[in-house]
Amino acid sequence: MTPPASHSDPSGPDHLSAAFQALADPTRRAILERLAEGPAPAGELGDGFDISGPAISRHLKVLEDAGMIRREKKAQQRICHLDPAALKRASDWVDRYRRFWDEKLDALEAFLKTSPSNGTSSRPGRTRPKTSKK
Amino acid sequence: MTPPASHSDPSGPDHLSAAFQALADPTRRAILERLAEGPAPAGELGDGFDISGPAISRHLKVLEDAGMIRREKKAQQRICHLDPAALKRASDWVDRYRRFWDEKLDALEAFLKTSPSNGTSSRPGRTRPKTSKK
Repeated sequence: MTPPASHSDPSGPDHLSAAFQALADPTRRAILERLAEGPAPAGELGDGFDISGPAISRHLKVLEDAGMIRREKKAQQRICHLDPAALKRASDWVDRYRRFWDEKLDALEAFLKTSPSNGTSSRPGRTRPKTSKK
Repeated sequence: MTPPASHSDPSGPDHLSAAFQALADPTRRAILERLAEGPAPAGELGDGFDISGPAISRHLKVLEDAGMIRREKKAQQRICHLDPAALKRASDWVDRYRRFWDEKLDALEAFLKTSPSNGTSSRPGRTRPKTSKK
């Protein structure tokens, strides 16, 4: 058993919950998608969204608290950067279960190969994800 | 621009938000981890958690509403199964950003190889992610 992670452990369950909570909103995901293209001033991140400036600020705060973005003061602007660490932790957790559906699909493939009478049931070309673990 | 996804679109943003929301709780993640090992009676899923039966039932309802588990009635029991589809959607979304940090690390590796004199510099060069917009 691993000991319960404390709040100071950035990979602990509370941080993971905060990361998933941050992702549980389409506006916040859209902001992350925008920031994946490059840093942007906080004031511009609301462009294209039909919500108020204060609402955008609250979303940015949730993303910042979850460790998903950093805000940097530059002259009169606050520049937002994507911080991939929290996103990577969320990805790592979900990725452990990738095996689960891969194995289910592999079992189906094996079944179809050994049972030619079932061979007409065609699955779309399936590729194993090439996720490089670093 | 893609049209806004309706509630009937299982890959739409609302379902994705529900999936991430379901993952934003350590008890629910632990239940999914348990079910990744195989189906289990709902009544046994609370074992090992220091929370009430009704609280476990509420967590199961959140997971079911998010499409992450299925409950099947068998004799007197309700057997819970992991349904990998919702988890896979969440994984697919996060995975698009895996490229983001992979490229950062690849850029660092390339930089260190071509610049032996800069081998001690530990900041990766920033690269633009190639995010595929759907």
